[in-house]
Amino acid sequence: MKWSQTHLYTLKESPADAEIESHKLLVRSGFIKKLAPGLFTYGAMALRSLRKFEAILRQELEKVGCVEVLMPVVQPKEIWQETGRWTTMGDGLLKFKNRNQHEFCLGATHEEAVTDYIRHDIKSYRDLPKIIYQVQTKYRDEIRPRFGLMRGREFIMKDAYSFDLSQEAAHDSYEKMYQAYQNIFNRLGLDYRVVQADSGSIGGDKSHEFHVLAESGEDHLLVEEGSDYAANSEVCMSQPSIAPSVKATGEKMAEIETKGIRTIESLSSYLNVPANHLVKTMFFDISSDPKKHQPIAVLVLGDDEVNPVKIKNLLKLDLPPEPINEAQVKALTGAMPGSCGPVNLKCDVYMDKAVESLPEIVVGANKDDIHLKNVVAGRDFKVKQVADFRLAKPGDKGPNGGTLKSYRGIEVGHVFYLGNKYSKAMNANYLDANGKSQIIEMGCYGIGVGRTVQAAIEQNHDKDGMIWPMALAPFHVHICHLDPADESANEKVEALNQALAASQIDVFIDERKARPGVKFKDADLLGFPVRVTAGKRGLENGVFEVVVRKSKAKHEVEISKAAEFIQNLVRELNEQ
Amino acid sequence: MKWSQTHLYTLKESPADAEIESHKLLVRSGFIKKLAPGLFTYGAMALRSLRKFEAILRQELEKVGCVEVLMPVVQPKEIWQETGRWTTMGDGLLKFKNRNQHEFCLGATHEEAVTDYIRHDIKSYRDLPKIIYQVQTKYRDEIRPRFGLMRGREFIMKDAYSFDLSQEAAHDSYEKMYQAYQNIFNRLGLDYRVVQADSGSIGGDKSHEFHVLAESGEDHLLVEEGSDYAANSEVCMSQPSIAPSVKATGEKMAEIETKGIRTIESLSSYLNVPANHLVKTMFFDISSDPKKHQPIAVLVLGDDEVNPVKIKNLLKLDLPPEPINEAQVKALTGAMPGSCGPVNLKCDVYMDKAVESLPEIVVGANKDDIHLKNVVAGRDFKVKQVADFRLAKPGDKGPNGGTLKSYRGIEVGHVFYLGNKYSKAMNANYLDANGKSQIIEMGCYGIGVGRTVQAAIEQNHDKDGMIWPMALAPFHVHICHLDPADESANEKVEALNQALAASQIDVFIDERKARPGVKFKDADLLGFPVRVTAGKRGLENGVFEVVVRKSKAKHEVEISKAAEFIQNLVRELNEQ
Repeated sequence: MKWSQTHLYTLKESPADAEIESHKLLVRSGFIKKLAPGLFTYGAMALRSLRKFEAILRQELEKVGCVEVLMPVVQPKEIWQETGRWTTMGDGLLKFKNRNQHEFCLGATHEEAVTDYIRHDIKSYRDLPKIIYQVQTKYRDEIRPRFGLMRGREFIMKDAYSFDLSQEAAHDSYEKMYQAYQNIFNRLGLDYRVVQADSGSIGGDKSHEFHVLAESGEDHLLVEEGSDYAANSEVCMSQPSIAPSVKATGEKMAEIETKGIRTIESLSSYLNVPANHLVKTMFFDISSDPKKHQPIAVLVLGDDEVNPVKIKNLLKLDLPPEPINEAQVKALTGAMPGSCGPVNLKCDVYMDKAVESLPEIVVGANKDDIHLKNVVAGRDFKVKQVADFRLAKPGDKGPNGGTLKSYRGIEVGHVFYLGNKYSKAMNANYLDANGKSQIIEMGCYGIGVGRTVQAAIEQNHDKDGMIWPMALAPFHVHICHLDPADESANEKVEALNQALAASQIDVFIDERKARPGVKFKDADLLGFPVRVTAGKRGLENGVFEVVVRKSKAKHEVEISKAAEFIQNLVRELNEQ
Repeated sequence: MKWSQTHLYTLKESPADAEIESHKLLVRSGFIKKLAPGLFTYGAMALRSLRKFEAILRQELEKVGCVEVLMPVVQPKEIWQETGRWTTMGDGLLKFKNRNQHEFCLGATHEEAVTDYIRHDIKSYRDLPKIIYQVQTKYRDEIRPRFGLMRGREFIMKDAYSFDLSQEAAHDSYEKMYQAYQNIFNRLGLDYRVVQADSGSIGGDKSHEFHVLAESGEDHLLVEEGSDYAANSEVCMSQPSIAPSVKATGEKMAEIETKGIRTIESLSSYLNVPANHLVKTMFFDISSDPKKHQPIAVLVLGDDEVNPVKIKNLLKLDLPPEPINEAQVKALTGAMPGSCGPVNLKCDVYMDKAVESLPEIVVGANKDDIHLKNVVAGRDFKVKQVADFRLAKPGDKGPNGGTLKSYRGIEVGHVFYLGNKYSKAMNANYLDANGKSQIIEMGCYGIGVGRTVQAAIEQNHDKDGMIWPMALAPFHVHICHLDPADESANEKVEALNQALAASQIDVFIDERKARPGVKFKDADLLGFPVRVTAGKRGLENGVFEVVVRKSKAKHEVEISKAAEFIQNLVRELNEQ
């Protein structure tokens, strides 16, 4: 394809709202253009990348027997009511009424729709197993969309759903999809990790995330050294922090003045006590009704953080609870954050098990600038439950005793064993060999299509632009045709184009009337894996210049040998 | 693909809400399944048809230089306000607020989005022409969705938009797209017609619709015999009805009693006057504000009908006006429909030019059961404007003098010259060679993807099921494999499958444990073009039975020659 045959305009300036490199580069290169926050038009180049990824998805999913369908974007309230998610999904589910006053939402996910789709068809055990998938536009009403396609409102997902006879069979489907996902991401040539993830209140240990590693990734991953254990930090198992043994004074609880002291750091230095001898009181709202509030307090050691996912799983909430705000803390405790504590608190108090190793603790007095010392749990305040609430962190010991190391990842895929949560709620049953009705077992499997394409660039770029992995590159070869007015040069470029096209290599030709510097800059920005320069001097000497975008390695190749050289280079780069 | 590898369940019963055969058949065959009114899941088979059609669309559009992009489904209010269509689009445009209280709509069409997309890129005359297209899900909030994919709420469209330097260049793009559309529909093997269509108040004669002919089609087409003139009846040019010359009596207007007479037919027989000597008074609401009413009256000859599109174009309305209801007629005139007329009417009165040939007319008196005779336009009532308001009908003379013949069509494509309506409103300009700012000229071009696939079946089916044209068939060949437990039969079927797959023929194998009658019935219902029966008796005699779905022609073909025979048959059927 020639530049003049497409609609492609590169920009010098990055958009003001772009925070990460891949977002800046995709906009600057004309791959995507914002219509409104979180809503993008995919340009011709981006579409080619998406389509290449989709083709890989289809190939690998069909190898393991997945069946493709296409479900509606707009979904009726009724199916979401069956599972209760019409209310529990929160504000991310965009709801509206149509002109007849019926309620609908924009599909953020399709468990309900697919379960409705199969429940009328599946009659007997002979109809199972099934894995149904689609590649479809989804919508999530992000409060603050950001990072381009990473956290957009409208986005393209590949979502698959498995239906099985039993938990064991569902686990087999899970393993099959896990393997397919590995095959998919291996083909992309990206550095990725599979980590254990939150499987919520539903079931077992069956939830894994696929993360493309990148410094700007929103997810914290912890990988245990010397073992194959890796997990999202929000569910990472780690051995609890242990506070050094401290003797009890046996004294009564007493106030201490702590004027202006609001943080663990300042309290630690004021009392000359290490942070892990101190205790933080954190507040979360566990109400599932957005119109109501139900605050709780959670106590953790001073150098630990609370993991809201652990609260969610312990209390069987639908979503991890949000911290309450300063005004709500003040209203609840009478003091500002930093001076709060569990004594005489008008809400339930939960305690991380690491806090148990401190017989007496220092906590806020629920009066500004006052703390309490010699506070004893059970004596001076009531504990609703002691459990594991802390967030694992780098340096902790992992479950196998190795030290946890931190990575940043972009979640691009998720495999999830669902059990019978949706099938039970929606009466998706089958008759077993004895004619007895049984509930279908389910799993769900998502891959963010646009997000993966952007993650590829977040991981692979340099100061000059994007560096496409061969598998996702809109074009494999970018020819900077410097002298398009010269008929003889045109012939040589066209011959190379034809020879490459014949071996399924996608060639993009920049034949604009523009200076060589402009063309090279744009070639670097667009970042197709192999650049070929067809310039006057080179052609006079009988050569093309071939440059590898990633390594910047340069080769002068005889015109007659160029096609073969490039075919080999493309193959090699694809296997890297 | 084997039946067991997909998710396919056929139904004996048609859905209760299906009115036309293609809707019944697509549901019964498991191609589509309703999630809610106007919202369908496309099953694996339907998706294969859609994808085949999309591939044809892409090939033909790219041949004429169209560039594919993908624009958002969800669109911000702001761009629709720029063109004024946020209010003028009516209730078909589904609007909603997101969680941040910003207003959006679901894209029913993308003129605004695409104009926004290109206006920041297009700087100079060198950037034009451009034709941008997409294949995308759209949403139109139909009050009463029906006919399956034909008039659904969510549907898949191919929409293209051309951007040009001048009206002349825009007409060239229009011709190019018109040709591409002919190439597309020719490839489908469907009986279709291109007709002139309403180009509204925008511009010229540049609007054509592509209709697949089918008796159940919602559109009335009129084709002139002995000429290549064809038009949607709503815009069809025809020579006006001519009332036989009638002499004026010169008498004064007078009441006549017409008890119980409400129709032209009964008035005609009561007065013993032909219908085309009588005059009907019809009422329409031309207000663009749904909260207000602005009725008008239109007079046409008794055997003519009013064409609301002609009212729309004459009065430059956004949409064809709706007739007012009985209660509104009563409120306006004081009488029920059938007793109304133009005398002393409190609204503007328009008159079809054919009515001018009657010097005196009989009309309702605006009193129930009373008419007026000897009524003279201009003397007894005021005429706002005389113009062409009548709907052309079969039997009329066309613009070239030939008789108009009636067809029913399903509109599957539309090409439309837009002029600068959107580009002007949205400031989509370019600098010409003299550095002067000029407004871009636009055209738009739509094809209903799902609608075309369904129209193919509405045109091609019989009492047993669907009959897929080769180009859209999910599979070209359907093998009824009657004895899948027999290893030797399996080998023969698999060898045929491999041989056909090698020549790009898509084969579907029904290897279910089911009776032959069930398999044949399902094969007829699914309607793939060629059916092969691999049965015990045939295989013992060394033959497959090959049946053409459409003609039901049967061939016994030696196993060794079957692949070649079927390849030839598929090619022949594709060329029909």
